[in-house]
Amino acid sequence: MAFPEFENYLKSLTDLSDAEVARISALAKERKLRKNEFLLREGEICRHKTFVLKGMLRNFGTAPDGSEHILQFSPELTWTLDAESYDNLSPARYSICAVEPTEVLQWTKNDFNTLLIESPKLKSLSEKIISRNIYNSRQRLLTALSATPEEKYEDFIKQHPGMLSRLPLKMIAAYLGISLKTLTRIRHAQLLATK
Amino acid sequence: MAFPEFENYLKSLTDLSDAEVARISALAKERKLRKNEFLLREGEICRHKTFVLKGMLRNFGTAPDGSEHILQFSPELTWTLDAESYDNLSPARYSICAVEPTEVLQWTKNDFNTLLIESPKLKSLSEKIISRNIYNSRQRLLTALSATPEEKYEDFIKQHPGMLSRLPLKMIAAYLGISLKTLTRIRHAQLLATK
Repeated sequence: MAFPEFENYLKSLTDLSDAEVARISALAKERKLRKNEFLLREGEICRHKTFVLKGMLRNFGTAPDGSEHILQFSPELTWTLDAESYDNLSPARYSICAVEPTEVLQWTKNDFNTLLIESPKLKSLSEKIISRNIYNSRQRLLTALSATPEEKYEDFIKQHPGMLSRLPLKMIAAYLGISLKTLTRIRHAQLLATK
Repeated sequence: MAFPEFENYLKSLTDLSDAEVARISALAKERKLRKNEFLLREGEICRHKTFVLKGMLRNFGTAPDGSEHILQFSPELTWTLDAESYDNLSPARYSICAVEPTEVLQWTKNDFNTLLIESPKLKSLSEKIISRNIYNSRQRLLTALSATPEEKYEDFIKQHPGMLSRLPLKMIAAYLGISLKTLTRIRHAQLLATK
C-alpha cells in the first residue's frame, strides 16, 4: 500500500475495492509540514482537499483586533480545507497551519472531482463527512453561544480526549473562545478538586 | 402560478423551465403557522424540507439550564430544516418555531429526493444553498468566538438590516449569545451616540 494509514482508513469506512483505493491513492500528493508551517494562508486560494496522515493542523480566523480564533483542529485521519475558497476559488477567509510536524495527502480539485465521478462510494463517504461537519458546526455554535467557560472546557475534554496533551493552552483558549487567564483558572480549580 | 413567491424565487436563481417549476410546486404542501407555533420540536424527526413564503421562523437549541439559543432566523424566501435529523431520521436536537404568523411550503424527503434526481438544476441550487449555509455557520462561529457584544450587535444589523424591527430584543440577545441586559445597554449607548 502506498499510504497504509489512508488506505486502511478508507477501507474501514467504505467497501471500496482495492483497485479503487489504489486509484485514489495514486492521485494523492504527499506533503510534509514543519511545526507552525502554513498549509494555507488567509487570502490565498484553497486548491486542494487535504487528508491528515500524521500530526495535527488547526484552521483559524483572525479577528479585526488581530487575535486568532480556532474553528477546527484536524488530527490524523481527518480531512480539512477552506470549503468556501475551495468551492468558489475565492480568497480564503481562514488559515490552516501545523500544530505539530504533520504529514498530509492532497488532491487537486480537478483530480478529486474526477475521483468523485468515478467512484460513487467515495462520493457517498465525502457527503457523509461534509454532513457531519455541518452538524458539528451547529453544535459548536450552540456551545459557543450558551455554555459557561467551565462547560466549554469540559465539553472539549469529552469531545477530544487525546488532544489536550498535544495542544498549547493558548490554542485551547482560542478554540473555546475564552481568555488564557480564564482557562488557567478553570484548570487550576479542577486540579484542586481532584486532589 | 400556484405559489408565485416561491416560483419567482426559483426562476430568479435558476433557469428551470416553467414545467419543472410547476412540477416542484405540485409536490409542495402549504402550511400556515400561528405566531409561536412549532414547526418542529426538539426530539421529533424532521421529515420535511421547508421553504418560507411569508413570515419568519427561528431555529433554536436549549442549553442544559433551559435557556434558548437561536442558531438561525429564516425569513421569507429562505429554507430551513434540522439537517442532522432530516438526513439520518434521528431525533432533532433543535426546534423550529414561528416568530410571526408564517406560511411555508413543505416537501417530504421522498418527494424532494425524487425532484433532486429529476432536476439537476434544482440539485445544483440545493447544493449551493447548503454550501452557503456552511460558510455562514463558520463565519458566525468566528464572530461568536471573537467579537465583543458591541461588534456582534453591529454585525447583526449589517447582516440582517430589515429584521431588527421584526424581532423581540430577547430573541436578538439569544441569537447573539449575550444577555438581554447587555443588549439593552448597547442599544441605549448607540441611541445616545446618534442623537
